[in-house]
Amino acid sequence: MTKNQILLYDTTLRDGAQGEQVNFSAEEKLRIARHIDGLCFHYIEGGWPGSNPKDVRFFEMAKDVKFKNARLTAFGSTRKANIRPEACPNLKALLKAATPAVAIFGKSWDLHAREILKVSLDENLKMISDSIEYLKSMGKEVLFDAEHFFDGFKNDHRYATKVLKAALKAGADKIVLCDTNGGTMPQEIAAIVKKVSSFIPSEITGIHTHNDCGLAVANTLAAVAEGVNMVQGTINGYGERCGNADLITIIGNLQLKLGKKCLPDDSIRQLANLSYFVSDIANIPPLNSRPFVGRSAFAHKGGVHVSAVAKNSAAYEHMQPELVGNRRRVLVSDMAGRSNVEYKAKELGIDLGKNDALSRKIVHEVKSMEDRGFQFDAADGSLTLLIKKAIGEFVEPFTLECFSVITSRTETNPSLSQATIKISVDGEEELTAAEGNGPVNALDHALRKALVKFYPQINEMHLVDFKVRTLEGSEGTAAGVRVLLDSSDGEELWSTVGVSENIIEASWQALVDSIEYKLSKDKTAAKKPV
Amino acid sequence: MTKNQILLYDTTLRDGAQGEQVNFSAEEKLRIARHIDGLCFHYIEGGWPGSNPKDVRFFEMAKDVKFKNARLTAFGSTRKANIRPEACPNLKALLKAATPAVAIFGKSWDLHAREILKVSLDENLKMISDSIEYLKSMGKEVLFDAEHFFDGFKNDHRYATKVLKAALKAGADKIVLCDTNGGTMPQEIAAIVKKVSSFIPSEITGIHTHNDCGLAVANTLAAVAEGVNMVQGTINGYGERCGNADLITIIGNLQLKLGKKCLPDDSIRQLANLSYFVSDIANIPPLNSRPFVGRSAFAHKGGVHVSAVAKNSAAYEHMQPELVGNRRRVLVSDMAGRSNVEYKAKELGIDLGKNDALSRKIVHEVKSMEDRGFQFDAADGSLTLLIKKAIGEFVEPFTLECFSVITSRTETNPSLSQATIKISVDGEEELTAAEGNGPVNALDHALRKALVKFYPQINEMHLVDFKVRTLEGSEGTAAGVRVLLDSSDGEELWSTVGVSENIIEASWQALVDSIEYKLSKDKTAAKKPV
Repeated sequence: MTKNQILLYDTTLRDGAQGEQVNFSAEEKLRIARHIDGLCFHYIEGGWPGSNPKDVRFFEMAKDVKFKNARLTAFGSTRKANIRPEACPNLKALLKAATPAVAIFGKSWDLHAREILKVSLDENLKMISDSIEYLKSMGKEVLFDAEHFFDGFKNDHRYATKVLKAALKAGADKIVLCDTNGGTMPQEIAAIVKKVSSFIPSEITGIHTHNDCGLAVANTLAAVAEGVNMVQGTINGYGERCGNADLITIIGNLQLKLGKKCLPDDSIRQLANLSYFVSDIANIPPLNSRPFVGRSAFAHKGGVHVSAVAKNSAAYEHMQPELVGNRRRVLVSDMAGRSNVEYKAKELGIDLGKNDALSRKIVHEVKSMEDRGFQFDAADGSLTLLIKKAIGEFVEPFTLECFSVITSRTETNPSLSQATIKISVDGEEELTAAEGNGPVNALDHALRKALVKFYPQINEMHLVDFKVRTLEGSEGTAAGVRVLLDSSDGEELWSTVGVSENIIEASWQALVDSIEYKLSKDKTAAKKPV
Repeated sequence: MTKNQILLYDTTLRDGAQGEQVNFSAEEKLRIARHIDGLCFHYIEGGWPGSNPKDVRFFEMAKDVKFKNARLTAFGSTRKANIRPEACPNLKALLKAATPAVAIFGKSWDLHAREILKVSLDENLKMISDSIEYLKSMGKEVLFDAEHFFDGFKNDHRYATKVLKAALKAGADKIVLCDTNGGTMPQEIAAIVKKVSSFIPSEITGIHTHNDCGLAVANTLAAVAEGVNMVQGTINGYGERCGNADLITIIGNLQLKLGKKCLPDDSIRQLANLSYFVSDIANIPPLNSRPFVGRSAFAHKGGVHVSAVAKNSAAYEHMQPELVGNRRRVLVSDMAGRSNVEYKAKELGIDLGKNDALSRKIVHEVKSMEDRGFQFDAADGSLTLLIKKAIGEFVEPFTLECFSVITSRTETNPSLSQATIKISVDGEEELTAAEGNGPVNALDHALRKALVKFYPQINEMHLVDFKVRTLEGSEGTAAGVRVLLDSSDGEELWSTVGVSENIIEASWQALVDSIEYKLSKDKTAAKKPV
């Protein structure tokens, strides 16, 4: 490991999940863990197996996954008071997770030992030492999180020091200094970390901060400047109260501004994508103003800024947005839009050639649809269809005559949904009906049932994900909705989008796009209805 | 002015309004200005009268307003190149605003003078001096904003120094160091401000930062630590790209953590209210995780945290939330233990007493529902009902006999939704039907229509937000969905939740909870059906 290497410890799945409105299923946690592993993060804290059954299930599932880069870590507390470590359920749950590394937190603030745990200061030290020694004897890499370390140090620096020394002596591989309440100022962090470095080797220390004073990132940087070489945080800064330190912002600053190495350059270029990926799974709208990766981070609105940026982007941009996979947006001009569409078309294997008028027409269409709430970043299937339609390379495979979906419920019977549909292909009509778990599912079944006799390859495809987001959301149940569908035929995965005030209509649009995409990529099928 | 006094310069109405999605009318600007003045801010930058007619109108209207504490300030650029100051339209517009103070920005980065303004470095200096001298001769307090000062200083410290000295010599009352692109690190800010203080008196310097690296607050504090005594920023950190420095967070840190004086204590207690007031006018949903004032800033979800906070709030809170007008909230989730439910019940005015069995029963119910995808941390309305039902304090206000919702569409007509519903209250049946923009909207309308004859107070309430989230989302359109509804009756806002594979069923559950919550809090109504 080079001197400049910083170790990234991601706790999105544990501390991040403590954020209000953040809620991951075990399956979703695994998707995020794999993604982060693929980007070469060094540690992934998967959860707290002692605290809830969902995390137990996550670690069960994770046993079948081979992580290529990251060390999966289980989180828990030290042993309980007055009990042998091998008998403590906390530590048993940690070991059962079967991860290469474990992180345990212990109290370094005397107030917490006395008033919260209600144990003597000596017993608290023993709880820490015993637990670390036991976990080391079981072959684990052990990270010790010194909870409330900075508050503890300010209140009684002798005791806080004793805690760290006890952890070191017991064999902790890493000692993580936590600003658990997020109330410490950067100068205090720097001064205290400096003192700690006189008795704990910097290269085994880590920093864990919270954003209660809007300083989590600055506090992390201050600790790194004093030699700390592991940073803990969450993607998008999710976490309890005001959140944890945002790892994406920290990585951007450390690697692009301060000459440290966190990730391979190729991973840095995927930071914007990572931010969206996690916010999608958390179903929390991405923050436009998020440093480095937000949609507005390189957006220019003021006329002065726009014309200056056109002359030299450094005039109002602190770095090239592409370095983190973001892009410049000029809110008053459609120059940027056209090149984007051309770029996207090329990526999709469609050559718009030098046809400026056609590009402009597509940009105009995309913009007017985005104004209405469509979002093509996450719906390449719909965008491909839109481009194919514009260049005349698309033939409608069927015509809808009508559909109707009914959901009914009585006092005792749960809701039941049924759809009827009439379509025509090449003048031939087909009328059918189907049931489903919900109105969209029923409609999906009915549409496929009607089409399969004309296009048997419909059977190859299936829907893999269905997301609904309310737009604006200020008109109660009359708010507009955007539906995103992911479909797959085993060879390819594609996404389509629909927008309407009516969720059935929005879903219908996305369903039709999904099926049209499948049929249009299959040439023999696309020819049939001509 | 005491040594510890920091001057607050609010630019929400000018730099804040450059933020994407931020848009104030002249009238709204005036409301914000009066509010901020009432809290004793020192300067209010009202707009850029040279750049748009809305700001001209704002300053016209402001002439009739007497500000008690703040100096209203008009913003603009220095004179244009090769023109006398008195002939320059920029400066004319500034004077016409008739404010006691004016702020003008000039270039302190040679790159900007050369490539953007395309003037010689000498002419740039003259543009600055001439403009300041002229505005001083017209009796104004003049603030000079050294745009891109830190980038300029890093690139050519001699020229950047010359710019500041020229402004000082010309008579500028304040010299504001701007990190316009937001790319400077806190240590750089500290080092450069220190150098500046050797040739510009600290007491007339100001700091203006942007949040592109997530460091705007830290950079402001770093400058103040070096003696700068005016801070510029915006309420809620609104502003172009990643926003300006958030004045609320800065005030919280300076006054509650660092011993500086920004505002009277009474104004500090209104910071949370100020944040909501401005986000309401900007019509931007308030950020729950905003430091000090966000709805989640003192919210506790993890069971360990909740039981600790119940013992001593300092255990997981860096300060008393009441100091800034915020409050503690305890969230109930699958991480929560019994202490969360008891705490929450108390907060809701329900005494679970010492009934451990009952608490356990409720926790069990909450956990098992959360396993199925319910989420109570964001649905206090549903949680209240659940607790009331468990303790026998709830009477069903109506019984559903049946409903049915139909959505139909033809080739040319967009989707139309209609619902029919039959309910009974105290044995009396009511059958009715209604339309809506979507199936849930239709069902909502039908249910209210059926109930209003029994409970006229239904008319007081309305839905304010509707959120849908797919759970797990690995089974296509058959995935489970969670619906969250926010409702209001003008006095209170409450949230309810429903979960099902069928979106109509999930919405129905949340709708029923919403209405039952309203009726159960209104005692006269709750008694009627008994």
